[in-house]
Formats: sequence, structure tokens, C-alpha cells
Amino acid sequence: MTINIITIGDELLIGQVIDTNSAWIGKAANQLGFDLGKIYTVSDTYSAIQDTLGLAIKDSDVVILTGGLGPTKDDISKKAIAEFMDDDLVHSEVSWEHIQAMFKSFGRTPLEMHKEQAKVPSSALLLENKMGTAMGMWLEHADTIIISLPGVPYEMKYIMEHQGFPKLQSRFPNLQRIEHRTLHTVGVGEGQLSEKLEDFEDSLPVGLKLAYLPNVGKVRLRLSKTKASSGDLDLDKWTAKMRTSVEPYVFGEGETSISEALGQYLKEKDLKMGTAESCTGGFISHLITGISGSSAYFEGSVVSYSNEVKIKVLNVKEETLISYGAVSEDVVREMLKGLLNFLSIDVGIAISGVAGPTGGTKDKPVGTVWVAVGNKEKVEVRLLNISKSRQKNIEYSATRALGMLWQFVRTNY
Amino acid sequence: MTINIITIGDELLIGQVIDTNSAWIGKAANQLGFDLGKIYTVSDTYSAIQDTLGLAIKDSDVVILTGGLGPTKDDISKKAIAEFMDDDLVHSEVSWEHIQAMFKSFGRTPLEMHKEQAKVPSSALLLENKMGTAMGMWLEHADTIIISLPGVPYEMKYIMEHQGFPKLQSRFPNLQRIEHRTLHTVGVGEGQLSEKLEDFEDSLPVGLKLAYLPNVGKVRLRLSKTKASSGDLDLDKWTAKMRTSVEPYVFGEGETSISEALGQYLKEKDLKMGTAESCTGGFISHLITGISGSSAYFEGSVVSYSNEVKIKVLNVKEETLISYGAVSEDVVREMLKGLLNFLSIDVGIAISGVAGPTGGTKDKPVGTVWVAVGNKEKVEVRLLNISKSRQKNIEYSATRALGMLWQFVRTNY
Repeated sequence: MTINIITIGDELLIGQVIDTNSAWIGKAANQLGFDLGKIYTVSDTYSAIQDTLGLAIKDSDVVILTGGLGPTKDDISKKAIAEFMDDDLVHSEVSWEHIQAMFKSFGRTPLEMHKEQAKVPSSALLLENKMGTAMGMWLEHADTIIISLPGVPYEMKYIMEHQGFPKLQSRFPNLQRIEHRTLHTVGVGEGQLSEKLEDFEDSLPVGLKLAYLPNVGKVRLRLSKTKASSGDLDLDKWTAKMRTSVEPYVFGEGETSISEALGQYLKEKDLKMGTAESCTGGFISHLITGISGSSAYFEGSVVSYSNEVKIKVLNVKEETLISYGAVSEDVVREMLKGLLNFLSIDVGIAISGVAGPTGGTKDKPVGTVWVAVGNKEKVEVRLLNISKSRQKNIEYSATRALGMLWQFVRTNY
Repeated sequence: MTINIITIGDELLIGQVIDTNSAWIGKAANQLGFDLGKIYTVSDTYSAIQDTLGLAIKDSDVVILTGGLGPTKDDISKKAIAEFMDDDLVHSEVSWEHIQAMFKSFGRTPLEMHKEQAKVPSSALLLENKMGTAMGMWLEHADTIIISLPGVPYEMKYIMEHQGFPKLQSRFPNLQRIEHRTLHTVGVGEGQLSEKLEDFEDSLPVGLKLAYLPNVGKVRLRLSKTKASSGDLDLDKWTAKMRTSVEPYVFGEGETSISEALGQYLKEKDLKMGTAESCTGGFISHLITGISGSSAYFEGSVVSYSNEVKIKVLNVKEETLISYGAVSEDVVREMLKGLLNFLSIDVGIAISGVAGPTGGTKDKPVGTVWVAVGNKEKVEVRLLNISKSRQKNIEYSATRALGMLWQFVRTNY
């Protein structure tokens, strides 16, 4: 069973908004066993929506559209779909009551335009949306199911999780999941991994497929079992085999991140950590606290953006800053030492660098980053040379720093 | 002149990677005056790439493909395009030398598979890529230009910025930019804005179009001048008119963010700031330091995730934590006071809440967030009730906190 997705909106085409809806739908649908055919992103005009709908229903069983269900004048999806299906828009009391109830919960009353929003194609089955005023719609056209959803991500997700996917599952009870296994690596490049995995790849049976997915300082290895072969091949066995070739770099399997893998390890070993951040400005701390339950091992951070904070809070010596500059091995060593004394923690990260685009010098160009990780007895220090954009320098050095601390605790505890 | 984009990769369809390339290309191309037709995301199979290429060249002048140019076995874009054009893959000495030089700069030598990567369609013009081994390709098929790029975002961007876009501009010298003006608002919903702008929208002449773009705590208002009307309408005048209806909520125009708008204001007034963060875990600090030049007004942060850090560093009273809990008005007031004493700053933000998904209680459910902003004389406090996912609770409360501080400095300085 194949799903095609159409995301609607000029703001997507001209890059004012990045489409995350289709990735979310694709992931969830894939896990349920649907094939993902194509994703189309189109303008919010009648012709673009209707032409693409015409294309998309040809090679799929389900077409999911997102966007254009709001109350404003540029929201035309409902009309476009109704016209496409030769259906009429009619007032829906269910939708109107829903809109009124939503407004009541905010202590407000609906506006005139929301009466327009309560109109739906006469054949539409409405899908509940507790997150906003625009209900989802389930329609059937020839042999294809059409699901129309609002573009606001958490509204779209609510509808699919509570009604869209459950209804699809009961309609297609014989779905066979495509299975994936993913290994996450850090501190190694795609080419090097591929070299280490050459024999493994050559030995892979038909029906298994390996993909390399590089992303800012990390590479994921995804092994997939396609439907043609399902039942015959032991994906876990092949994943374990793959792992032996790249073990020192693998920080996790499945859905994980370097901050989650680090957190799990710290929790197991009952260790507490903190960070002293200059160039990353709190981003490492954000990555760590993005994980639910991180309070078990994360005490806190000092974002020492100014030299004054480095000196006053982290006890970095003024002479060190003057002699070597804030971006130096000596300063990150002192920052780490100060942090370990300042907070009640076992291990920590200290980082200082030139995030750019300004602030670089000949000796210390943009992307020069010093990282120290360790405890009171032992410290590992590394110099990174990154030279990407400011955001990428921050992301990349944060990832590498987390990878270094993960290596450190794995080796020393 | 219309551009269609094809992004290639199963990882995009099944949501393991979010496609940011098409948004970046769309934005840049739009600013140069290209129309964006459609974005297609397809599987990395010969039929998917070739069928979509067939569709995409029909209604566009330029087709840009990203992905599938790497050295590994699942990288088939080059072959697929060559077959589509009835062209052959031939060894390119230019590409091979480039690959060797890239490897040399890393202190390594190319692997055998990289000789395969040096093969290109015989008619391809190669586009330089200083960021990676895979060069871009410029091809011409019938009346359409085909540009094939690697999928790694910073490599793709490098090629388009240095060769792709400049070459397109010299090929199409008469491009007319579509103009946009964007107002950014915070602290107000889409429906309320739309109500305030009802008369304005009714008065808009044909050829101008208003779009509402909501995003986690903010709404952008985008006014566009379509080509049909270009030359006749004063977009600046209409934007100024729109602004008068929603002025109290507008923190900026054009390309900006709430952290940038806040930073500009702080810089103008020569004010220094810092943050004391519990539930946001350094994310506010990250948003602020994401702006180049933020060291002019940003001193640093204390991420006080544990109560111990709140007490020891920020001087929050233990009694207050016991009596009211860490998520309370009293605690954020004390955190802010402590922060203002601890760092040499004029104004600050303190925040404490339940990010979720665990940790909620009946009295303080997930999404309960207290925010305090202010200086030593005056403090504004607000209770937010958000109840989205952990990440969204963090993002939303960070945005609202920045909005509150922006309002505070705008009113008091």
C-alpha cells in the first residue's frame, strides 16, 4: 500500500518554512508498513493542488495533504479538493460546534471567518483536532483515500495519531512493516566507514540494503529489509555483524542521539555532569536537557560568554586569557577545572572557540574550537578545525564534544 | 523562469532526514526572481528519478536535483541522469584530480570507490565543490537545464552560491524578482491578527497577497507583489499601512528573529543581559548566541537544572523551593534576583517549568512554565500553560521569554 504526500503552501516553496510534516508522516507511515511513493510540495493555487492530486492518486492508495485549512483567505485546500471531486462545500454543524468549543476554551468567541471554516465537502468524514480549530478530513475518490490535514505540525500530528493512522490500519489490516536497523556512529567519516564495511556490503544478501546517512559530525548506518525478502533474513544478525566492523564508533542503535547515549551511560554509572560553554553558548546544555529524565545526571551549566564570567565564575586566570587568548588549550583546561570545582559533578565539558563569521584571526580562524572533557584526575583535550557556518560550527563542535565525553566515560568508568 | 526541485533519497521519504535543501534553494532562487514550480521528493531508484525528471522538465526551465552523488553503492543519481539523457558515464580527470586533492588535504588517499565517483556524464559541465569530493554537474536536455548536486547541505550550498546561481543569472539576465515584505509578530494569535487586519486585507489591490505564517509563539505576516502587477504597487507603503494595525506585536521586518531583534535593541541601548534557565536548559542562551556579535550584549548564563545550583549559584532560598516548589513565581523571582547580582548585567530572564513528558502534577501539569524578566528595580512575571511536546514546550517558552524581555526593554529603556 502506497502513500503519496502533498504539502501545500508558497511559504514551503520559497523556503520561508521548512516542511517537517512530510518527514513525520513518512516515518510514521513507513513504520506501519506503508510504502512512501513521492512527496510533492506545491503552491496554494487551485491548479497546482488539483493537478498534483490528479497525479498523486494515480500511483497510490492514500494521498495525504497538509496545509491550507486555516481561517484566512489564502486557505483554499478544502475548496480545491471539493472541486476536484465534483463535490460541494456544505456547512458542518460538527465542525462549527468544534470551532465554538475551541474558542470558548480560550475565553473568546469565533469570528465571522470561522463560519467559512466550518464548511466542508459534503462527502467528508471529519477527523477530530483537539489542538486547533481546523478539523481533518477523510475523503474517498475512486480507489484512493484522501486525507486533508492542517499544516500546523502539532495539529496535523494529533489528527494522524488519534484518527488518521488508526483508521488507515483498520482499512488495511494486512500491512507488512519494512524493517530497518540503524547504527549511530560519531568521530568517523562516511568514506572511512564504507571502507571498513566493504566486505560486509559485498556479503549482504539480496533484499538487504545498507545506506549511509551523514549528518554534522555523525554518520548513521541504516540496514533495511525490503518486502521482497521479508521473513527470510535475520536483520538483527546482520546488524550485529555490521557492528563488529565499526564498533569503536557506534554510540547507539535505533532511535537515539549522542546526548541520549551519553545520558544513558552516565545514569548507569551514577555520574553527574555539567558544561562550561563559551562558543556553543548553551547549545550542548540544550542537547543534554532535550532528553527527558536528564535531571538524573545533569546538574547545570555555566555559559561563560564574556571573559568576566570565565574569570569570576570559572576561576580562569586573567594571565592565561592574556597570554593565550580565550580560544586556547590552557583556557579550556582551566574552564573545566573551574567547572569541576564549582558544581557538584563527576565529569564535565569545557569548550571555547571562534563560531564566526567574525572574530577569526590568521592564527585562530573561524571554526577553531578547543574542547576539554574529563574529571578531576584526567582531562582529554582536542582542537577542532571546522570552518562551516556559525550554526554548523556550533552544532558540529557540540556533537564532537558530546562524543568526546561519551568516549571518556566509556573508557574510564 | 521556473525551477523545479527533485530531492532524492529514501531517508527523506521515510523521515529519517528532514529535507532542508529544497527550502534553501527555493528561498535563494525566489530572491533572484525565479518562480518555484514544484518540489518532488523521490526514492533513490532509477525509475523514480527518471520518471520524475521526465515530469519536472515538462513545466520548468531549470531542474535542480540533490542527493545520490556520494561514493557509496546507493548513490545512483549520476547514472540515472546519464541514462535519462542517453549519455554515457566517462572518467573525468578534473573530478579525479579534485577528489585526490580533497583527500590530500585530509592527509589521506582516495579509495578505489572514489574512481567510480570520478565518472560523469560525457556532456556534463562540472561545478566546483570545495566542501567535499562530489562535484556538481550542469547538463542541458532539450530546453531545460539540469543541475545535479550532492545532498550534504553545506556542499550543495557552496556549489550553488559559487557557480550554480551565478551561471543561472548570466543565462537568464532578465529575471524580475518577486518581492516580499515580512513583518514578525510575537504574543498574538493568527485569528486575532486576521481580525485586526480585516479592513486592510479588503483594501489590498489586485497583485498584492497577504499570507499568515504561524510558528511556535510567533506569526509572520508576508505581503507579496506578484509579477502581474510589478512596477505599479508600492510594497513599502502597503507594509507600513499593515504595520499600523498590528504595531504593538511587531518585533521586526524582513529576515530577523526575536533574539536578533532583542539583541539589536540591547546593543542600541548599551545594555547587557544574561539568563538563568531551568526548564529551557540553555536553549534561550543558545538562541541569543546564535546571533553573530551577541558578545556585545550577552554576558552569560547559569543553567540551574538542579536545586543545588539554584541555591548555591543563584541564591534561591531553600525554604522557597520547599514551600512553593521549583516551578513557581517565587522561585523565578529569586532566580532573576540572584542572576542580576551574580553577573554584571542590566537585565535578565529567569525561567522554570515542567518541560515534560514526565514530572507533571495535578497542580503543575506538563507545560506549566514561570518566566520572570526585568532589572534590579522592576520585574515582570508571567505564567505560561503550553502542553505540547517536550521540545515544543522548550521552544515555545524560550520564544515567549525572549518576547517578554523585548517588550520589557522597549518599554523601560
